[in-house]
Amino acid sequence: MKVINIGLLGVGTVGTGIAKIMIDNEALIVSRLGAKLNLKKAADLDVARDRGVSFGKGVLTTNPLDVVNDPEIDIVLEMIGGVTIAKDLILQAIANGKHVVTANKALIASHGNMIFNAAADKGVAIAFEPSVGGCMPIIKTLRESLVGNHILSIAGILNGTCNYILTKITSEGVSFDVALAGAQAEGFAEADPALDIEGFDTAHKLAILSSIAYGMEISFKDIYIEGISHITPMDIEFAGQYGYKIKLLAITKYADDTVEARVHPAMIPFSNPLSSVNGSLNAVTITGDAVGDMMLYGYGAGMLPTASAAVSDMVDIARSILAGSSPVIPIRSFQTDRIRKIPVRPMDELISHYYIRLTALDRPGVLSKIAGILGDHDISIKSVHQIDQKLKGGVPIFMLTHQAKEAEVQKALTKISSLDVITDKPMLIRIEEKNN
Amino acid sequence: MKVINIGLLGVGTVGTGIAKIMIDNEALIVSRLGAKLNLKKAADLDVARDRGVSFGKGVLTTNPLDVVNDPEIDIVLEMIGGVTIAKDLILQAIANGKHVVTANKALIASHGNMIFNAAADKGVAIAFEPSVGGCMPIIKTLRESLVGNHILSIAGILNGTCNYILTKITSEGVSFDVALAGAQAEGFAEADPALDIEGFDTAHKLAILSSIAYGMEISFKDIYIEGISHITPMDIEFAGQYGYKIKLLAITKYADDTVEARVHPAMIPFSNPLSSVNGSLNAVTITGDAVGDMMLYGYGAGMLPTASAAVSDMVDIARSILAGSSPVIPIRSFQTDRIRKIPVRPMDELISHYYIRLTALDRPGVLSKIAGILGDHDISIKSVHQIDQKLKGGVPIFMLTHQAKEAEVQKALTKISSLDVITDKPMLIRIEEKNN
Repeated sequence: MKVINIGLLGVGTVGTGIAKIMIDNEALIVSRLGAKLNLKKAADLDVARDRGVSFGKGVLTTNPLDVVNDPEIDIVLEMIGGVTIAKDLILQAIANGKHVVTANKALIASHGNMIFNAAADKGVAIAFEPSVGGCMPIIKTLRESLVGNHILSIAGILNGTCNYILTKITSEGVSFDVALAGAQAEGFAEADPALDIEGFDTAHKLAILSSIAYGMEISFKDIYIEGISHITPMDIEFAGQYGYKIKLLAITKYADDTVEARVHPAMIPFSNPLSSVNGSLNAVTITGDAVGDMMLYGYGAGMLPTASAAVSDMVDIARSILAGSSPVIPIRSFQTDRIRKIPVRPMDELISHYYIRLTALDRPGVLSKIAGILGDHDISIKSVHQIDQKLKGGVPIFMLTHQAKEAEVQKALTKISSLDVITDKPMLIRIEEKNN
Repeated sequence: MKVINIGLLGVGTVGTGIAKIMIDNEALIVSRLGAKLNLKKAADLDVARDRGVSFGKGVLTTNPLDVVNDPEIDIVLEMIGGVTIAKDLILQAIANGKHVVTANKALIASHGNMIFNAAADKGVAIAFEPSVGGCMPIIKTLRESLVGNHILSIAGILNGTCNYILTKITSEGVSFDVALAGAQAEGFAEADPALDIEGFDTAHKLAILSSIAYGMEISFKDIYIEGISHITPMDIEFAGQYGYKIKLLAITKYADDTVEARVHPAMIPFSNPLSSVNGSLNAVTITGDAVGDMMLYGYGAGMLPTASAAVSDMVDIARSILAGSSPVIPIRSFQTDRIRKIPVRPMDELISHYYIRLTALDRPGVLSKIAGILGDHDISIKSVHQIDQKLKGGVPIFMLTHQAKEAEVQKALTKISSLDVITDKPMLIRIEEKNN
């Protein structure tokens, strides 16, 4: 039987999952692939820890160069993470003519163009299904299943930690800090949760998706990013009363040969299937000109779901090796010479519906002042609600607006904030209606 | 630029959609594939009708042999439907060394093994993504994305007509006949709707999915099939009060090297994401040993969504032609020599929760008689409800059971039906709890 030799860099959670699937499901994979995937080398600084996987003799090594420089290894799986050592090792593997599979969204978001060009020049595959959406085949769906579609938009819940926290605030009415502590206690959030809760992890994934959706160079720096730490139970409760859930969304849209790319908490109507995606689950909706709206839903992280995606990439590459062909699917969905810079529209130009929560003194004339400023900025109010509840030296005023321009909304809020009747920082949440 | 020549058999709804995508999105496909897909011949009995597509000169023909025997055509798309002419033409195309894409679920369900073997012997691809789930990449996900997973179960809403009708009964409280007439008027149901509403179309799709999920020979005749025409608004309303929706499901499960394969209306809890799939939309949940539960959701039929899946198959094949390789993905997910017969468990052996609705005279002692018969068959009642409403000479009695064996339930219902206090045929709906 033919053997494809695999080298693994990093035997942490996902790396261990990959080894588990390769060992536990070896017979299954052979019966599907018609060849054996042989885990020849696995590098990790800690080779002593029991991972519940029986690696073959001599497989584990502390030296990653044993992996990337082994002439018999066909495919290198990079599961180290980070943007320094991982980058050097991937480039070395590519230079040695090896195909690469990586789960490293931060690295691709920041250095993807350079790495992809290196792989294309060398004629090797670089695959990254596990970098976005865990087990959901979002990369394969965009690159292969929707190959006949102009992608018009993508909206996704792509960070399980944030979705877990928002779900907990929604169901238990607790504060963000309490929900975060709960998520940490239950293993759904890191000790340092900033990468997740500030939206960066989601934005790394969005940078990858928008690149392969439109054939554009990866442009992480142009993404608008806002996290979830300011969301309160009061906002979630109000949203619920008006038929909305609050989710941290990654959104990209294409129109007039420019792209929107933004990560922020969004109010979405109950009729949007993303609104019922709860806990640590992920989902992504894609709109194509032929397929209309479709959605993928599943575990976006975790040992085995993410490892499953890496195995899928590995088998795809193995099949092309067995067929004696070079990689047939272009890395970024479009032929390399068609990849181009597509401008990302500044956030200021966004047109959206908005939810605004102000905290103001409970005095006559306050609303008239606020409404006046909003009117000056062409922001028309759809509904306004005030409740009898003390909040930071005032009472809360909730407003939903008709479509307005982000730049005007920001200017109006700055002016409103400076009114002496306003006692706390305003809250602004964009509403993602279907017709936004 | 390299050209791949395409031949189309059948220019009906889906065939027209394929031509539209190939023409409207030609530049897009070229920029992704790096070659041109050229629609060289398209055969249909009616070449005069205006389809809103500008076919090139000499492309349309009434003779399908102009397509399958054209030596320059690389890929033949069969969009005729039916199991007679379509079969002959596909076999002729394969014999001529052409790759084939088909949307013909009825044909694959009934003659798939023979056709697949013919393709494997000849070394050509036969692809059928458009045959199941329209735009949802269910075949690609099972064959490629989940290649490292043992598939444990699949449950799907795979027929838009049935889902549209059940949604209409649920939201409007109308009878099946009224909902069907509405669906026909709005173009969501055929004039002869039997293939859809009796569950056969769903079963054709299930036969295909279970084959590629487990690497088994297609075995349509072993599928249990029950349609939706007996479902009443009363059953749907009761289900709703107890937290369930009623959906026509295709279900397959693998355990102990045997397979369950059944199509029937099922009560599913609101927490099951399939419960919120409404109207003509389709969705399918897949459980794999590595990924856990995942779901695909989208338009399961219609001109462009189905055509999009055909274009995806066509581009996959074109890529392997351009790479000079033979097809790399085995047709039924497993290597041909690993495909085997896997026994389908008889429906009698099913263990499930059940909903039973009886119509009985409103007399003392009736419930005791019924409960006695159920007890004799090891069926334990979880809850029972009787409402004061006249129905076919009696009153309705609703029951939910704990887990019971299908054979015993059927025997018990036969006995109960023969009681002189029972005034109408009993209604039985299986409940698909997660722990079934």
